[in-house]
Amino acid sequence: MTNFTPSAADKFSFGLWTVGNVGRDPFGEPVRAPISPVEIVHMLAEVGAWGVNFHDNDLVPIDATPQQRDKIVADFKKALDETGVVVPMATTNLFTDPAFRDGAFTSNDPDVRAYALQKTMNAIDLGAELGAETYVFWGGREGTETDAAKNPLDALKWFREALNFLSEYVMDHGYGLRFALEAKPNEPRGDIFPSTTGHMLAFIETLDHPEMVGVNPEMAHEHMAGLNFMHAVAQAYDAGKLFHIDLNDQNFARYDQDFRFGSHNIKQAFFLVKFLEDVGYDNPRHFDAHAYRTSDYEDVKAFARGCMRSYLVLKEKARQFREDKEIQALLAEIHGGESQVSKYSAEAAAQLKARQFDRVELGNRGKPYERLDQLVVDLILGVR
Amino acid sequence: MTNFTPSAADKFSFGLWTVGNVGRDPFGEPVRAPISPVEIVHMLAEVGAWGVNFHDNDLVPIDATPQQRDKIVADFKKALDETGVVVPMATTNLFTDPAFRDGAFTSNDPDVRAYALQKTMNAIDLGAELGAETYVFWGGREGTETDAAKNPLDALKWFREALNFLSEYVMDHGYGLRFALEAKPNEPRGDIFPSTTGHMLAFIETLDHPEMVGVNPEMAHEHMAGLNFMHAVAQAYDAGKLFHIDLNDQNFARYDQDFRFGSHNIKQAFFLVKFLEDVGYDNPRHFDAHAYRTSDYEDVKAFARGCMRSYLVLKEKARQFREDKEIQALLAEIHGGESQVSKYSAEAAAQLKARQFDRVELGNRGKPYERLDQLVVDLILGVR
Amino acid sequence: MTNFTPSAADKFSFGLWTVGNVGRDPFGEPVRAPISPVEIVHMLAEVGAWGVNFHDNDLVPIDATPQQRDKIVADFKKALDETGVVVPMATTNLFTDPAFRDGAFTSNDPDVRAYALQKTMNAIDLGAELGAETYVFWGGREGTETDAAKNPLDALKWFREALNFLSEYVMDHGYGLRFALEAKPNEPRGDIFPSTTGHMLAFIETLDHPEMVGVNPEMAHEHMAGLNFMHAVAQAYDAGKLFHIDLNDQNFARYDQDFRFGSHNIKQAFFLVKFLEDVGYDNPRHFDAHAYRTSDYEDVKAFARGCMRSYLVLKEKARQFREDKEIQALLAEIHGGESQVSKYSAEAAAQLKARQFDRVELGNRGKPYERLDQLVVDLILGVR
Amino acid sequence: MTNFTPSAADKFSFGLWTVGNVGRDPFGEPVRAPISPVEIVHMLAEVGAWGVNFHDNDLVPIDATPQQRDKIVADFKKALDETGVVVPMATTNLFTDPAFRDGAFTSNDPDVRAYALQKTMNAIDLGAELGAETYVFWGGREGTETDAAKNPLDALKWFREALNFLSEYVMDHGYGLRFALEAKPNEPRGDIFPSTTGHMLAFIETLDHPEMVGVNPEMAHEHMAGLNFMHAVAQAYDAGKLFHIDLNDQNFARYDQDFRFGSHNIKQAFFLVKFLEDVGYDNPRHFDAHAYRTSDYEDVKAFARGCMRSYLVLKEKARQFREDKEIQALLAEIHGGESQVSKYSAEAAAQLKARQFDRVELGNRGKPYERLDQLVVDLILGVR
Repeated sequence: MTNFTPSAADKFSFGLWTVGNVGRDPFGEPVRAPISPVEIVHMLAEVGAWGVNFHDNDLVPIDATPQQRDKIVADFKKALDETGVVVPMATTNLFTDPAFRDGAFTSNDPDVRAYALQKTMNAIDLGAELGAETYVFWGGREGTETDAAKNPLDALKWFREALNFLSEYVMDHGYGLRFALEAKPNEPRGDIFPSTTGHMLAFIETLDHPEMVGVNPEMAHEHMAGLNFMHAVAQAYDAGKLFHIDLNDQNFARYDQDFRFGSHNIKQAFFLVKFLEDVGYDNPRHFDAHAYRTSDYEDVKAFARGCMRSYLVLKEKARQFREDKEIQALLAEIHGGESQVSKYSAEAAAQLKARQFDRVELGNRGKPYERLDQLVVDLILGVR
Repeated sequence: MTNFTPSAADKFSFGLWTVGNVGRDPFGEPVRAPISPVEIVHMLAEVGAWGVNFHDNDLVPIDATPQQRDKIVADFKKALDETGVVVPMATTNLFTDPAFRDGAFTSNDPDVRAYALQKTMNAIDLGAELGAETYVFWGGREGTETDAAKNPLDALKWFREALNFLSEYVMDHGYGLRFALEAKPNEPRGDIFPSTTGHMLAFIETLDHPEMVGVNPEMAHEHMAGLNFMHAVAQAYDAGKLFHIDLNDQNFARYDQDFRFGSHNIKQAFFLVKFLEDVGYDNPRHFDAHAYRTSDYEDVKAFARGCMRSYLVLKEKARQFREDKEIQALLAEIHGGESQVSKYSAEAAAQLKARQFDRVELGNRGKPYERLDQLVVDLILGVR
Repeated sequence: MTNFTPSAADKFSFGLWTVGNVGRDPFGEPVRAPISPVEIVHMLAEVGAWGVNFHDNDLVPIDATPQQRDKIVADFKKALDETGVVVPMATTNLFTDPAFRDGAFTSNDPDVRAYALQKTMNAIDLGAELGAETYVFWGGREGTETDAAKNPLDALKWFREALNFLSEYVMDHGYGLRFALEAKPNEPRGDIFPSTTGHMLAFIETLDHPEMVGVNPEMAHEHMAGLNFMHAVAQAYDAGKLFHIDLNDQNFARYDQDFRFGSHNIKQAFFLVKFLEDVGYDNPRHFDAHAYRTSDYEDVKAFARGCMRSYLVLKEKARQFREDKEIQALLAEIHGGESQVSKYSAEAAAQLKARQFDRVELGNRGKPYERLDQLVVDLILGVR
Repeated sequence: MTNFTPSAADKFSFGLWTVGNVGRDPFGEPVRAPISPVEIVHMLAEVGAWGVNFHDNDLVPIDATPQQRDKIVADFKKALDETGVVVPMATTNLFTDPAFRDGAFTSNDPDVRAYALQKTMNAIDLGAELGAETYVFWGGREGTETDAAKNPLDALKWFREALNFLSEYVMDHGYGLRFALEAKPNEPRGDIFPSTTGHMLAFIETLDHPEMVGVNPEMAHEHMAGLNFMHAVAQAYDAGKLFHIDLNDQNFARYDQDFRFGSHNIKQAFFLVKFLEDVGYDNPRHFDAHAYRTSDYEDVKAFARGCMRSYLVLKEKARQFREDKEIQALLAEIHGGESQVSKYSAEAAAQLKARQFDRVELGNRGKPYERLDQLVVDLILGVR
């Protein structure tokens, strides 16, 4: 049995806001004292993470002076240098400040939209300075509680304007950043748009520079809509748009729980890891989760270690799956091969129309999916 | 007060399977005797509908001989002629027959995939013969119960192959049909793909002929995923892909209930109708719903009339909304105008970066959305 | 048309935490400046509310000195006297303080359980002093994120101990208070117990003094579990346990949205109001909701007025329902009368066994429920 | 490693309708040929099950003559004798026949209510004749689609009348049967009542003979409402009402999926099995699930074997949990012991009121729940 120790090759990253989460929730005060970005970098190094991500204001407070900013950034870089931790991704906080109470890029207030754009340019500068290669957009306030108040066509237009503007900003500065859009169906707004990874993928196709924009699917967000996360990830991958991924866990059809990766929906986590490993996904694996509010910082470390450990255990199981003779024999039996008719021609259509099918016989062809699935469950449970 | 009587201009349609539904469900036998397509056409004419849609096997049984088929089609055409009811849309049943138990276009069995293609070509011929302009694809069996059994990349590839093939088939025959893809997240499969209108819109962009493929969003399907249906419809419209729409109703996060349009989520129905009317949506308005299992056919007529009546009542309320001075004054106050910065240039970016924002003041700008929403509720309740 | 102005007879109440909500959420800072309990009482009087409810720490900060407490209470009483606003209900905040991070009455920590008991005795004293007749228990932290950490049998035992202790405390002091238990399935804990109004009603039967304990069902909480709220209210009423009610609104299967009553699920709100009015419910009607985060305090007033107005509009519609001849005729037809066999005797059983039923004929008896429901929708929409 | 072979002591049972399920669903025809009750008994014996349960009409068709009935029962008994399979539970089908389209015990039609009572008496006779000790009530049609059509107070009264009548019928005949009520929130009705295990437990307390009535919680049904199933089971056990249990699996907030036990929510299944084994649950363990529609009967056997195997694997893991020193040490640390104050007296209350609590210190007490939960995940994954 391998020892499931993370390495840089795993590209495991955490946001400053994840292990640094102080445990405030809608009904309760913080339970953990804040720790500094420098302390977080050292904690991440201690537990074996590769990267650290941040929102602009996770690192630099929204009201910092330029001098304070420079000092903070210098200290942060020093911590990165000392530990070898890298910054793969950065993003903008466009949700905490009351200015964004009705949205950022899609606020009805054009002053707020302009401010959001300014704030994001500055945050992109900060991300680029620290070496980020991916820039995530999560529009936590881009939504409505009542559809009387905002025209979704306006919202889509304004969101598109902002992304087009920022795409050119990045190109103009030669930053080499790629954008990754993160969908969430609701919370903190009644309904957020675009609401799922699919809606976001579709939205990208309406941008001026779709080639530099992909998605950052988050497991918990897709589970909030009761959707199969791996299917969404596969569709993003199929479209060449899987630029980043947020790994965590939570119940379907619930508030945003952001549980430790692998801690709740174990089977779904297995199929997700299996997919990523099977296709050779090589972008960051970001754990966008936080420890229970009952945890102290020792337990926060256990949380962070657990995210990575469970990933590696499931990766090993994915390898076993590929090498399991009984499973592979079943899969060979199940997968009937490539399509007999795939490219249209008048002849192909005519031939196919003339073919006699015995649909009763086709309907009698059972598939051993229960048998296969039980082998997977056995494999997950370690009794195989 | 108008009398809310449907007219052809409303383009209200019903599927044969909707008012003809016999009330079988997973736990119970049929409660209504089957009625023929001809009888259904006459019923639809009686209640004031404009169009009738069908799956191939709603009209022609799967095991009909060519002679039987021709007789059925002739009788059906006669009923259409007599009543003036038109056929705006047709589709294929790729879910009832046991042959499709593991999918149609995405079955692991290449024989089944070929059969599905053949069946759809024949069904397209039938639809074209009867004048349909839109051809809907609902892939009720395109999914999985266990992700061990099917590779979603295979499934996407196979689904794409099928749609590309059929697109060329339609073009080759000069049928002038457009395709409309209908998403559903689950039921009857554990997880169906693509799962939502957003995922479907994104998938379309990967096809060979995206220009002839749009979506057919269904209210109940998006509600199953707990999503705001109007937002999805707006995104489809924004992308020029709102080719057709399925109107019905149901609770969030439930089995497929297919309730009478306007009967359950009244406010969401209002905002949907308001959106369609505001943008001048001019494609069919299809009620993909069925009467309660407690209904007899007299009550089925009440069901069909109710779908159309509620639409028209809500349409009238949308008009009131547009003409309500207090509401419009609030909206003018809320909508702060077009974006100050929308097109990138180095200068625009520099100017925006240099601008001083008073974010506290921005955060203090409250919006009268409760007041506005209560006016909408008053309007819906008819007390305004 | 009546003017829908609230009066004392309506027993409309709001918590200090509702109109006084400052709009902090998991992702954002407060958007409204705090206002004092005295200011809230005056605001409630201004909008026409009858009562004000509070958690101990809504009124008296958790770290107030006895002198501060007395001053606050005196000021509050003065505001009540000046305005005529009454205190029908009080409750304890057992969720905000970090001490309760693992629960209050069901914390694994016996010191915390003792502290929760002490805090509740003090809060009951405060409630009794201010005239509350109902004392609500909402155990927001009584739950788990991992079932490894807490034995639910322990939790039930500890919760029971606490309620038994506090029941006797109230009796011993002759306070005349009744307890009302409020269920919620999740948030802020992963799973809260008991999770629904039903589970709470069942739990009450295991207490030492069930006669003094009822429930406080909340619309939003039951909607989080996708349940029909009116059905739960009816069951509580049937059991003689509907001591209090929390009126608000929200989508099914979502985070805790606490929308304005009547603003979202209009039909469900209608049937709820109809039920309460039909049975002559005479306990407080508490609006446990808060304004959108986009609102300023003017809009908070619109929110509060809207809650009450919508209730009164729906109440008027319930009256119309009772007096609508067509609806009542349908109901008379639908309701087939009392049971033919209701009390067991050997003879009754034998007779019933011997009876010949024509089940096919029974199965053919359709019910005009679509017709009836459309009449209800028409009535709700004000087009009847 | 044990071999996870089921034995009679495990009390594993299946309904005739589970392994005999022919795979019809709302959108598709049957995919498996029907097999007889006798064949099912032999199949269950082959896979190692202990018991077989049935609805009256699973065994005896609704239109069988008395002679046919006697022959069927005799054949069935013979199969039971030959195989040693027992009948622990029986129930009535009150949902398939159109007669029950508006409910059985709660139909608005008093003739239907009387027929349901007669049918159940006959079915109880059949169950008793075959040795059943538990009689389950699942009221699949006891609900509404529109709350206009049925008064929930009538429904509760009628349901209560029926259960009281049938309780006395059983006592009068000395059958020794206990009743177990099974809740489901929705499907096939829009809303079913009572909707959850909690609502059912509460309802029982309103019956004439609550001592002979318990519950039959079903995992899938509680998951449909997004509730923690183990918590509901624990509450039923705490109340002495866990008479029977339905084991299966499914996603939260979905249609009724009835997946193989242990196949989907593995962690929840672990905690459930752990609970049942920890408390020494000794009633039947019924798998109320069915194989995927893709399965043939060989795969149905794999399905049945998988249900039992996963239970036994999880049981073994529950044993490991109890014997794991690190886990037990953490639990000892977490569980702070019995309550310091549990029984009320004026003195106890006074002492507690006088106690000084350092709430800040209480709030600083972190709990190692992430660490504990990761150990559980490791144990589930077999890497511990």
